[in-house]
Amino acid sequence: MGGQADGQAREEQEEQEAGPEVRARVLESFGRQGLMAHLGARITRIAPGSVHILLPHRPELTQQNGYFHAGATSAAADSAGGYAALTLFPATSDVLTVEYKINLLAPALGDHLEAVGTVLRSGRTLTVCRLDVFAVRAADRKPVATGQQTLIRVEAPPR
Amino acid sequence: MGGQADGQAREEQEEQEAGPEVRARVLESFGRQGLMAHLGARITRIAPGSVHILLPHRPELTQQNGYFHAGATSAAADSAGGYAALTLFPATSDVLTVEYKINLLAPALGDHLEAVGTVLRSGRTLTVCRLDVFAVRAADRKPVATGQQTLIRVEAPPR
Amino acid sequence: MGGQADGQAREEQEEQEAGPEVRARVLESFGRQGLMAHLGARITRIAPGSVHILLPHRPELTQQNGYFHAGATSAAADSAGGYAALTLFPATSDVLTVEYKINLLAPALGDHLEAVGTVLRSGRTLTVCRLDVFAVRAADRKPVATGQQTLIRVEAPPR
Amino acid sequence: MGGQADGQAREEQEEQEAGPEVRARVLESFGRQGLMAHLGARITRIAPGSVHILLPHRPELTQQNGYFHAGATSAAADSAGGYAALTLFPATSDVLTVEYKINLLAPALGDHLEAVGTVLRSGRTLTVCRLDVFAVRAADRKPVATGQQTLIRVEAPPR
Repeated sequence: MGGQADGQAREEQEEQEAGPEVRARVLESFGRQGLMAHLGARITRIAPGSVHILLPHRPELTQQNGYFHAGATSAAADSAGGYAALTLFPATSDVLTVEYKINLLAPALGDHLEAVGTVLRSGRTLTVCRLDVFAVRAADRKPVATGQQTLIRVEAPPR
Repeated sequence: MGGQADGQAREEQEEQEAGPEVRARVLESFGRQGLMAHLGARITRIAPGSVHILLPHRPELTQQNGYFHAGATSAAADSAGGYAALTLFPATSDVLTVEYKINLLAPALGDHLEAVGTVLRSGRTLTVCRLDVFAVRAADRKPVATGQQTLIRVEAPPR
Repeated sequence: MGGQADGQAREEQEEQEAGPEVRARVLESFGRQGLMAHLGARITRIAPGSVHILLPHRPELTQQNGYFHAGATSAAADSAGGYAALTLFPATSDVLTVEYKINLLAPALGDHLEAVGTVLRSGRTLTVCRLDVFAVRAADRKPVATGQQTLIRVEAPPR
Repeated sequence: MGGQADGQAREEQEEQEAGPEVRARVLESFGRQGLMAHLGARITRIAPGSVHILLPHRPELTQQNGYFHAGATSAAADSAGGYAALTLFPATSDVLTVEYKINLLAPALGDHLEAVGTVLRSGRTLTVCRLDVFAVRAADRKPVATGQQTLIRVEAPPR
């Protein structure tokens, strides 16, 4: 019907690294994601509104033809977007995925995947991210998936 | 499960205008879209893999608060993506929308909307487009919606 | 990353008509949607968590092959979902579409379309709807589109 | 713009189990999905146009709050939809995911997840599935995610 009112669109993100408080917060939360460790994913970049996650190829991540399974591709993309959103939140907030949509553009074959989450719009309640996943082999970096994600800011549960 | 195999990803589109044959084909098809005329939409740019559609504000296009209705925003975006795909097809092909997803980023208020469809991947069977919609008022051009669309190439029906 | 916490899932909606207060509120808001009148749409059913919108065929609603344009199909579906959400809100609330995704299942040909919005989950902040669109000709009622929509509850602006 | 022409919509799926040839084909392909074994997923039902996948809770599948990670939820849902599509294909065909969209409806907490893929439309080229994921604890079975998926039929690669 309409379009939301509580934020501003962000097309371009600053390229510098995030500050130490934000980095620590993202890495601490990422460290609690059992799935990311189980898949062998690690964060390779934390900038304001943008996070990169690297996922090395392993037979444990494949679908029936040996490509990265869409579920592995999506898991890395979903976490990249979620942490991209988190970089712009106050320290007392946590983030949950509301929904996402992803197109698989090409067979995901390579030495590793690089998933990039980028905040397009950061609102008081909702954040919208673009998700891009690349398959990398030596000097070759090829887009294999692209998506769009909606996230909600919630109060961090007491720990 | 996997990711398709029949095409190549395209991140960047050439910026030149399309040739006369492609332009004629797009405009002829657009002219047959009763809905576009009914909404008052017109094509303002046809480049290889990218089409812009302009939709002037009218009370006939609004939702309950006077913003452009998401349906009007989406209709312009859907046609922009469809014709962006068509610019890369042979002359005997037509295009149908398989699906799309759109996020409404901000209230769509302005003198007109500008919907931009951009081909991300052009395959033998399927094309994936990014959809961006901006609300324009004087010098102000603000993103109000962003989406992702899958299209299928079909043989043009005999006319 | 996670999944939201502020609501409950609803698979089945009650089948009775909504009460007079809710009906009046939905019809008043629908009457302000310039686009719905411009397309010739009307509401044919208002039940708690479910709204039906009927869209008679007109050349003004078509794409290049004479089918209903995906934009017309989507506009009816988007409004059906939005008003389905509104039926479950308090009287002081309004609804905005956050995003939706729609698959076009078959050519939308018929005497009219029937768009059905059904609330799947009604939360404090966010509502998720299923969208179903049927093309109807005499006794034949055929699914032509299906979608999923996220909506946000906002305070109704002063009128 | 339009809606595809090469299939028929299926709202209701037959409830019987699939025949032995189809079951063998699905299980053989599932057995080659390294990710499914790595996550601990197994197929619990194969019917024509419908497949169920069970995913027991493990700390290796969680996000930062201990819920099932959206990536794990999605991986099970994506495979359930893919194999639901495969049950309706000839033996020489394989299936790839074109795209999917998923809404996380509630925190995914439970002893296991049950992901159900159901074919809504089976066309010559494209299949559309509904994806439903439930969190199960003892007698409690709660919807935690719902999605929509587009798949493409391809010739099975030689093995």
